[in-house]
Amino acid sequence: MAGLQGPIDLGALAPDTERLAADLAALAAYRDPDAPGWTRAVFTDPYRAERGWVRDRMRDAGLEVRVDAAGNVIGRLAGASPSAPPLVTGSHTDTVHGGGRFDGVVGVLGGIEVARRLRETGTRLTRDLYVIDFLGEEANTFGISCLGSRAIAGALTGSHLDRRDADGRRMGDVMAGFGADPDGALRQAWAAGGVHAYLELHIEQGPVLERQGVPLGVVTAIAGIERLLVTFDGRADHAGTTPMTERRDALAAAAQAVLTIERTACGAPVHAVSTTGRIESLPGALNVVPEQARLWAELRSVDAGWLSGVKGALAGQIATEAAARGVEAATEWLTDQGPVPTTPSIQDQIAHTADELGIRWTPIPSGAGHDAAHMTPLGPLGMIFIPSRGGRSHVPEEWTDLAQIALGVHVLAATLTTLDTAG
Amino acid sequence: MAGLQGPIDLGALAPDTERLAADLAALAAYRDPDAPGWTRAVFTDPYRAERGWVRDRMRDAGLEVRVDAAGNVIGRLAGASPSAPPLVTGSHTDTVHGGGRFDGVVGVLGGIEVARRLRETGTRLTRDLYVIDFLGEEANTFGISCLGSRAIAGALTGSHLDRRDADGRRMGDVMAGFGADPDGALRQAWAAGGVHAYLELHIEQGPVLERQGVPLGVVTAIAGIERLLVTFDGRADHAGTTPMTERRDALAAAAQAVLTIERTACGAPVHAVSTTGRIESLPGALNVVPEQARLWAELRSVDAGWLSGVKGALAGQIATEAAARGVEAATEWLTDQGPVPTTPSIQDQIAHTADELGIRWTPIPSGAGHDAAHMTPLGPLGMIFIPSRGGRSHVPEEWTDLAQIALGVHVLAATLTTLDTAG
Repeated sequence: MAGLQGPIDLGALAPDTERLAADLAALAAYRDPDAPGWTRAVFTDPYRAERGWVRDRMRDAGLEVRVDAAGNVIGRLAGASPSAPPLVTGSHTDTVHGGGRFDGVVGVLGGIEVARRLRETGTRLTRDLYVIDFLGEEANTFGISCLGSRAIAGALTGSHLDRRDADGRRMGDVMAGFGADPDGALRQAWAAGGVHAYLELHIEQGPVLERQGVPLGVVTAIAGIERLLVTFDGRADHAGTTPMTERRDALAAAAQAVLTIERTACGAPVHAVSTTGRIESLPGALNVVPEQARLWAELRSVDAGWLSGVKGALAGQIATEAAARGVEAATEWLTDQGPVPTTPSIQDQIAHTADELGIRWTPIPSGAGHDAAHMTPLGPLGMIFIPSRGGRSHVPEEWTDLAQIALGVHVLAATLTTLDTAG
Repeated sequence: MAGLQGPIDLGALAPDTERLAADLAALAAYRDPDAPGWTRAVFTDPYRAERGWVRDRMRDAGLEVRVDAAGNVIGRLAGASPSAPPLVTGSHTDTVHGGGRFDGVVGVLGGIEVARRLRETGTRLTRDLYVIDFLGEEANTFGISCLGSRAIAGALTGSHLDRRDADGRRMGDVMAGFGADPDGALRQAWAAGGVHAYLELHIEQGPVLERQGVPLGVVTAIAGIERLLVTFDGRADHAGTTPMTERRDALAAAAQAVLTIERTACGAPVHAVSTTGRIESLPGALNVVPEQARLWAELRSVDAGWLSGVKGALAGQIATEAAARGVEAATEWLTDQGPVPTTPSIQDQIAHTADELGIRWTPIPSGAGHDAAHMTPLGPLGMIFIPSRGGRSHVPEEWTDLAQIALGVHVLAATLTTLDTAG
């Protein structure tokens, strides 16, 4: 066994698989009883209760626990040199409506298990290790994701707090009702460059690792997202009497745009996706040619050049195709978040550690957004992916085998330990 | 001037244009103050008040007025031989949400004006003339149109009365609350073949007459309608991580179907239209590949063979195209109403009368449904169309010039008078 002296036995940091399984099961018990799957939305009672459980687990693991103004649960394992820039790991425990048991959760429980194994093996790090359960990573009813990591990075703004949901509630007020201090959250950004390394373990949420039969992904970049709302203005006409050639059918124009948006990513040179998630038509009567239609779509890619090229061309293409039908199409860009490359030296360290442990790995882009993307200003960052069965995520069927999770937690522990003294 | 003796001077039956204009303006004042355009939905207060005004106008015109169990307002101008099968004319005064001032209204006010002119010119008909303001012709919130004409034809059923709207209200109860006798309405069908001729004046609601520069249309047939609901079942996946090639995107399949449905009528040999009026996708989140989508569409044609051919092929085509995307498409046919040809002898009589009056006319199909379509079992039927500016209808911009309306009312009066002694 490795102690404070001599080279560390990375193999000894393997997690206690049964304890991990028990934690996963215990956390999964916190869920909205009136919603499908494992629903634990930010600011709800099941989420509040579950995070109380997380705080208890952190304390049991020997972490010093605090909840910051933004509502992030932060556990600290003191290192030998507390003044050195800390190591940070973490993820989130909120879920989408009808979500699963692993998205985010493996990163938080994995971080707690790493702290336990470090103590149990007597592996005292030089640096402090923070394990964070970030507040509300999933897009919430106010249209904002990654609340907690934004706050830590200084990217949460007053206009975020002023956003209102469909019921007219202000997000800042809802945060305060949840027990957070929203105004304080705007003033608690960590110092830029103050983190030695941020490392996040997460399920892939896609099919690549499973398809390649590789148990570990070293994330190369987190995809950028461009979200758009397109409004189509045509003309309402009697659907029985207006000849096909004299219509200005807003819904037909929107349908064509759905297929145009779909084709956009099909032709991309690297991983890119384009999705129309929602559509509406007005007045919505069977006997009236639709006067207006709206669609909400998103484009994602790890290639900033491709994203900006598409952003420049897509609205014009949709407008031209709609104009051929006498329909006006106006595109509003809702979100603009560039791709975030992970830090090459951290990628190398993860890969090297996996090699040391005899675990096969592959470089992989992340199509999903993560808290990690917001940690960029604070220091070097990396992400470790483990497989998702069938690539499914954000659904109750989301699944990763316990052995796969344990392997990911092992690499997380070993890489953090290696990074402690690296650079 | 023509009296009871000798040939009738059809020219003398021309309406009093100023009186017609005043009636149109007075009726248009009854509208829902909280809705756009001229909104007067069945069972609402503005509709109730407006039909009280119609009853008064009928009485002023010398008609004997009754309201039947279904809520039809029926005015009778007694003929010389009351036992002879009567002449019937009429239309409706309810409107769609945000509708206009002419759809239906010109047929009711035109019928009342015909009665006035017959009396004023001393033209006593042999037969009784009924002028009917049919209850609720437009599709209502219970999904049923032509309530009044269905009741008169014996086509209103108990299952119609049991239908519920989005608020769970039963249509029969709402009818009763409006003052009608819904159960009585099921037992008041007129005798089959008991009508000498039914003739309805209506705006075209399409652009054909205006485009051809012809002031009068002799309706050849009323289009049949096939309405369908298609449900697309795909798979919910993370929109950021699921490659384009591994998706089962229900909304993309639905979008393709919208364009397939549109193309269907574009290739029809005679007047046919196909419209997707409404679409939905679930879960409707921007970051989830849509799991389910639904669309509601309709096909209309005066050609029963084309309609049944399309009905037989369309669902299969949509299902095949969706299957290529891994999406299941299930089509449910909601309404099946065959085309209704008008009676050739009545078409001839309208055309002949127009020729006599020196009015140009053209044969024209009706893409819209009408109360007339339900009158088939009762006897011969015909319809007269007058132009709609820009073909617009079911919108506030709906417009027909007063001179065009007066011309239609003149042809209505003259044709009814001619039919009185014909056949």
